[in-house]
Amino acid sequence: MRNPLLAPELREALAEGRTEELATLLQEMHPNDAASILSGLDANELNTALALLPLQVERNIFEYLDADVQEDVILASGGDRVKALIAALSSDDRAAFMDRLDERVRDQVFPLLNKAVREDLIRREQFEEDQVGAILSTEYCALSADLTVLKAIEEIRRQAPNKETVYYSYVVDADGRLQGLLSLRDLIVARSHQWVRDLMRTDCVKVDATAPSTEAARLIREYDLIALPVVDAEGRLIGIVTHDDAADIIAEEGAEDIELMAGITTADTSERYFDEPVLSHFRRRVPWVSALAVMFLVTAAVIHENEVALRSATLLAFLPMVMSTGGNVGAQTSTVVIRGLALGEFDPRALLRVLWKELRISSCLAAVLSAIVFVEVYYLGWNELDGNVLRMCFAVSLGLLVHVVSAAMLGATIPLTIAALRLDPALVANPALTTLADLSGALIYFVTIALVLG
Amino acid sequence: MRNPLLAPELREALAEGRTEELATLLQEMHPNDAASILSGLDANELNTALALLPLQVERNIFEYLDADVQEDVILASGGDRVKALIAALSSDDRAAFMDRLDERVRDQVFPLLNKAVREDLIRREQFEEDQVGAILSTEYCALSADLTVLKAIEEIRRQAPNKETVYYSYVVDADGRLQGLLSLRDLIVARSHQWVRDLMRTDCVKVDATAPSTEAARLIREYDLIALPVVDAEGRLIGIVTHDDAADIIAEEGAEDIELMAGITTADTSERYFDEPVLSHFRRRVPWVSALAVMFLVTAAVIHENEVALRSATLLAFLPMVMSTGGNVGAQTSTVVIRGLALGEFDPRALLRVLWKELRISSCLAAVLSAIVFVEVYYLGWNELDGNVLRMCFAVSLGLLVHVVSAAMLGATIPLTIAALRLDPALVANPALTTLADLSGALIYFVTIALVLG
Repeated sequence: MRNPLLAPELREALAEGRTEELATLLQEMHPNDAASILSGLDANELNTALALLPLQVERNIFEYLDADVQEDVILASGGDRVKALIAALSSDDRAAFMDRLDERVRDQVFPLLNKAVREDLIRREQFEEDQVGAILSTEYCALSADLTVLKAIEEIRRQAPNKETVYYSYVVDADGRLQGLLSLRDLIVARSHQWVRDLMRTDCVKVDATAPSTEAARLIREYDLIALPVVDAEGRLIGIVTHDDAADIIAEEGAEDIELMAGITTADTSERYFDEPVLSHFRRRVPWVSALAVMFLVTAAVIHENEVALRSATLLAFLPMVMSTGGNVGAQTSTVVIRGLALGEFDPRALLRVLWKELRISSCLAAVLSAIVFVEVYYLGWNELDGNVLRMCFAVSLGLLVHVVSAAMLGATIPLTIAALRLDPALVANPALTTLADLSGALIYFVTIALVLG
Repeated sequence: MRNPLLAPELREALAEGRTEELATLLQEMHPNDAASILSGLDANELNTALALLPLQVERNIFEYLDADVQEDVILASGGDRVKALIAALSSDDRAAFMDRLDERVRDQVFPLLNKAVREDLIRREQFEEDQVGAILSTEYCALSADLTVLKAIEEIRRQAPNKETVYYSYVVDADGRLQGLLSLRDLIVARSHQWVRDLMRTDCVKVDATAPSTEAARLIREYDLIALPVVDAEGRLIGIVTHDDAADIIAEEGAEDIELMAGITTADTSERYFDEPVLSHFRRRVPWVSALAVMFLVTAAVIHENEVALRSATLLAFLPMVMSTGGNVGAQTSTVVIRGLALGEFDPRALLRVLWKELRISSCLAAVLSAIVFVEVYYLGWNELDGNVLRMCFAVSLGLLVHVVSAAMLGATIPLTIAALRLDPALVANPALTTLADLSGALIYFVTIALVLG
């Protein structure tokens, strides 16, 4: 979010050389607010303003700038300043920042960084973008088990300036294996001569570096953690994921699920709508809509074969209505089922219980919808020459009723089956459902009409 | 999540009277894990096991139990124990717990509670369920501005056992107005003789009690906070919202948006899928599907009026395909637009830019889809007697092309218009879009065919 309101005043203060006033003002604000105000300046002014600040403050503000503004700052800075600023970023923000950079810019910046920073970036590359290893922060407080509470607090004070959080400290053995966790709350409540080894919690929740980052977010949320330790295959502590990262992951996951359910393939979530090229949007959206378009050939063939049944203009007119209404109910069912799966309310083995529940819900819905279509058919078809209008009303209503209930059954079965196969139900459920519901809807419509009207 | 695996062992330990062993085991676990194991027991066993634990531990475990298990525990307990347990809950969990109780049980439990607890529950009732005032926690650390760092840490130690978080402390004046914030990090880094009044941050982010809880979650996420202070209309501090509440709110919001987009009206998010009665599910789902079913009368009337144009079985066969494919593309567009709005990437004034972007994306999609339908029509219609098959292919393709592009335009315009009216675009966009896309799809199909085939 950018705040253009204060930019003119900032610009004036810069032009008049009131640098000390400006620096004090920016340091007193929350870095997020400072970032939002500074974003109203152009790249040169912004750089001048940032250069007035201590590196630590500059770093904090930089982390809250939008990606494109960050890139502008880097491009307008000299090599030394770039090096200092990027080195000062916390390791997870630095990795995310490098990842967002244009490839050409990244190749220029990379050699400027010092060895430890380069190694950290390379280490992350062995992980997929959505694995914990790629997003962890290496700035955690580490304590020895052989400290008293007093010494431990002194040690945390010493480490504090460079750490993501000081509220949890981790105890590791000589091989770097995670031994336990100690919260600052436990430390300040304890007596000063107690030992870390006696106080630390040894059964602490942890996550593997190769786990998906959504798993880390889930654990943080389920156990109400401020930070979650990340271990490698040998149980060595290699970083932490903090509560604020978890909130971002949860929010992004929600947005991604919504996209998946609309048949849009995985988003590169770092890309903004307008920044993403048309062709990239196209590539993410074309697979499902065209697959559905191909599968509609079956529907078309069914209608084509049965065209005789649709010689009545009224029966023809209600085909889209019946197909679409069943699809809507099916989509609702799959939505609540996917939600229940996501929230852990039930697992795929609950299929029969879900079907029984949905059978009752969809029967209620079908009763209402059939009544609506009965009236609609009567209204449009009462002056039709070739048939008994009430029989026609009955045929269409019955077709809709059967289709609504069967679409609800499909809407429950498809996501549960996909989940049983250990795939993400949000990925395929709704688009697959649309097609199946349309296919079965057309079939049910023709069969019912043939049976009722002969 | 319930873990039935350890239940038999627990049951055995209970039956054999190994109570001390059991109590130690449960106390050493994270309360979330203890809750998950205990949920495998029946209500009586569970109550016996909980009664072995100190009230503080029992409270921590109780907060992680599922709502129905919590209710079982309360129903199986005597009045004194219910009173002690509910009083020991943190104020926000207690309010949520009382809210979930069956009304009959709630009316029995309420008079058992002490006056302060009853007043807290009544105070929350002046707020809507989704307002910050209803979900805040009153267990925050308060400090006087006239303390040294040493005294402040002592004071926090004293308050710690009953507080949600000790990592942020708040300073209020004599009237209870929020003066500033001090983090435990700042306190342990400071020198012990410094004054709270000099160290506290006075511009702290806060939220009004009448603001929606999603606003509190947004602020916590945006400013990476552990807790957010809540003030009343006079600026008096009345509670806090913590980071773990924010994560829950964000996750629930994502799930709610997905439901809204499937035309399911607002969920009472405290209710689980199987717990919610069939009729309640039905009531939440019936409005949109039946409204859509009614609006389809327009589509039906259009087809009814134009039946002559559909005397060709092939042209008739492709009507559902064209309608549905355009609808899919429109739903994709509205999804990415709603996402962009939610993430603050653009606002409703960006309509023209969005339309231009979507025009290009949907043209690419339309080109692919038209090619697909061209082949499909040729395949089904090559032996049709009454017309030139290539001309028919062209007519259907053109109809689809126009419909896909116009559905994308609708998919962009509808959510942006709804957002401009300050309504939630997720609320009405997708179901409204489905209907409009189907209506316009049928119209476009007939007009194109009439123009091309004469």
